[in-house]
Amino acid sequence: MNPFQLDAVDGAARAGRVTTAHGEFATPCFMPVGTRGTVKGMTPRQLAEDVGARVILANTYHLLLRPGPELVREFGGLHRFVGWDGPILTDSGGFQVFSLAALRTLDEDGVTFRSPIDGSRHRLTPERAVAVQETLGADIIMAFDECTPYPATRDEARDSLLLTARWAARSRAARRRDDNLLFGIVQGGMYPELRRESAERTVAIGFDGYALGGLSVGEDKETMAEMIAVSAPLLPAARPRYLMGVGRPEDLVLAVTHGIDMFDCVMPTRNARNGMYFTAAGPLVIKQARYRDDHRPIDAECDCYACRHFSRAYLRHLYTSSEILAAVLGTLHNLCFYQRLMARMREHIIAGTLVDFRKHFFSGYGMADRFGSAG
Amino acid sequence: MNPFQLDAVDGAARAGRVTTAHGEFATPCFMPVGTRGTVKGMTPRQLAEDVGARVILANTYHLLLRPGPELVREFGGLHRFVGWDGPILTDSGGFQVFSLAALRTLDEDGVTFRSPIDGSRHRLTPERAVAVQETLGADIIMAFDECTPYPATRDEARDSLLLTARWAARSRAARRRDDNLLFGIVQGGMYPELRRESAERTVAIGFDGYALGGLSVGEDKETMAEMIAVSAPLLPAARPRYLMGVGRPEDLVLAVTHGIDMFDCVMPTRNARNGMYFTAAGPLVIKQARYRDDHRPIDAECDCYACRHFSRAYLRHLYTSSEILAAVLGTLHNLCFYQRLMARMREHIIAGTLVDFRKHFFSGYGMADRFGSAG
Repeated sequence: MNPFQLDAVDGAARAGRVTTAHGEFATPCFMPVGTRGTVKGMTPRQLAEDVGARVILANTYHLLLRPGPELVREFGGLHRFVGWDGPILTDSGGFQVFSLAALRTLDEDGVTFRSPIDGSRHRLTPERAVAVQETLGADIIMAFDECTPYPATRDEARDSLLLTARWAARSRAARRRDDNLLFGIVQGGMYPELRRESAERTVAIGFDGYALGGLSVGEDKETMAEMIAVSAPLLPAARPRYLMGVGRPEDLVLAVTHGIDMFDCVMPTRNARNGMYFTAAGPLVIKQARYRDDHRPIDAECDCYACRHFSRAYLRHLYTSSEILAAVLGTLHNLCFYQRLMARMREHIIAGTLVDFRKHFFSGYGMADRFGSAG
Repeated sequence: MNPFQLDAVDGAARAGRVTTAHGEFATPCFMPVGTRGTVKGMTPRQLAEDVGARVILANTYHLLLRPGPELVREFGGLHRFVGWDGPILTDSGGFQVFSLAALRTLDEDGVTFRSPIDGSRHRLTPERAVAVQETLGADIIMAFDECTPYPATRDEARDSLLLTARWAARSRAARRRDDNLLFGIVQGGMYPELRRESAERTVAIGFDGYALGGLSVGEDKETMAEMIAVSAPLLPAARPRYLMGVGRPEDLVLAVTHGIDMFDCVMPTRNARNGMYFTAAGPLVIKQARYRDDHRPIDAECDCYACRHFSRAYLRHLYTSSEILAAVLGTLHNLCFYQRLMARMREHIIAGTLVDFRKHFFSGYGMADRFGSAG
């Protein structure tokens, strides 16, 4: 059975469902990031019941260093270890390793790096990245890729996509379990023709789903939009499409319009801890003095636990007092905002009215609809 | 109507109920400390539903400095501002002000101090402390007292208790609301005869309840036990008795045995954030290497959310990774431990078997029952 069911399309946008060994989730969807086996500040129960998250992401790199995949396996896998019984996606670890710069060395076979925690030496190859993810027991695992640096020359970007393609084939061959889905990753830097080449090479290998990597790495919005626009149509319609590490609410609206199904990003959780809350009228920085005696909830359109019970003034008090509850309530709210955004887009795709939603979203959010032509 | 109903006595120990404008709570009880209007790491819903707390404490000193009592009043009082609709007790602010040392000056009328946050000048007198607490809208408010320094000479301790007595009378006269309970505070340092004198003077003024202050300030356990033992019997049986700022689980068992009804302490919450969890077998320091692959919950006797879902190994992973969830789950567990301790003592007092519980508690906790003669 195809693990991806397409329920509706609206232009290039899609509403679907992904089936995994730990249940199904609807798309378009946003995956809260549980870097070290916890979505910062949330209990699994809050994630499931208050946020309504159905699938979360965990980072192989962080879990590899601490507590280590063997320990996690000994506890029955990541789901049991972290107390989350829904679907989990793990990345391959590559993205974080490449960010280590001076601490890592790359060769054709893989990457060697030192742990920033204790200096211990580690190695990731396509085979090892798949093995670690299978040891962790994630439902969706990612091929090991090189996240093309930005900026990169055309030659650098092509060399990088070719390495990623060779690693993709090795990742696919390294698979040992049949209860997970393996996604390939499209690279190609900011060169449309390289994005096309990477998409074609990745599709030729054949995966359960396809991701776009190497975006939201410093390029401007128009470039990101173009890379998504050229890549997405080359991916098989019958497979889920995942835009890695993106992004802002407006990015999600853009990408869904172009046919992307899945997203992850630390923005809602990290920004919450920094006192930046998302609202239908745009982001709000809670420490500002104007919220000192503001009786309103963060977002009048939101029915989350934080917005039902607490004023901006109280949240500002918590934030300026460095209270944990500021991070907890802000995270809960921001994740609810993202969940609701995805749920509304899904409803509108099914109704065939995504263009109306997009207009409504951008006018409320105080932005021009940059993507008017794509829908 | 007497706001304190006595349900049962067992030796000197008492089981009762305190009725306030925001509902009733059973005693003996422990009040989680919500210093700045939040019990660190807990949502009000977790406190009510997971911990089962029925009454919480907030610190007048901290709320006076930020966000200020007038702002809280503008939001309909502390209950609405912080989203807790059960009983709240506020202290008078004195304890924290006296801790400021070089930043404060004392005179007969009150205390002047500077805010450590912004250097602004503030003054607390008995009248002002009561007014601030009534502006905050707490259900139980405390007379303004001087927390006698430790150590103190007999003369210093007597001067201090006399000042506290004069301030107690002024606190009582300063009351303007009739929907709260005002508690007087017994001081007297570590001198039994001064504790007696302070208790008699405080009772003579007449309060809705009585607190023992100035304990757990550095004295040894035997001295604290003696001060409780001499003071408690002098307090009216028909009024609740509150031991301020205490303490460890074993202190609570001791004090309940001597007839104390109410407690508050930052220990369960602060220690949780430092990775120290309470169990029936004594405290556990989660960062220790021996918990690295420990499949057991924090405490096999505990049915809290943390113990039902997570292993010591996962909690250790969260703690060593400095994850917020370590603080949240640890706090939830420690507060549940304290709540259960109080609930069990109440059951045993009603059954007339507190002495059995005490033996069971101390043998499990790995301690001799130091208070065997008191029950």
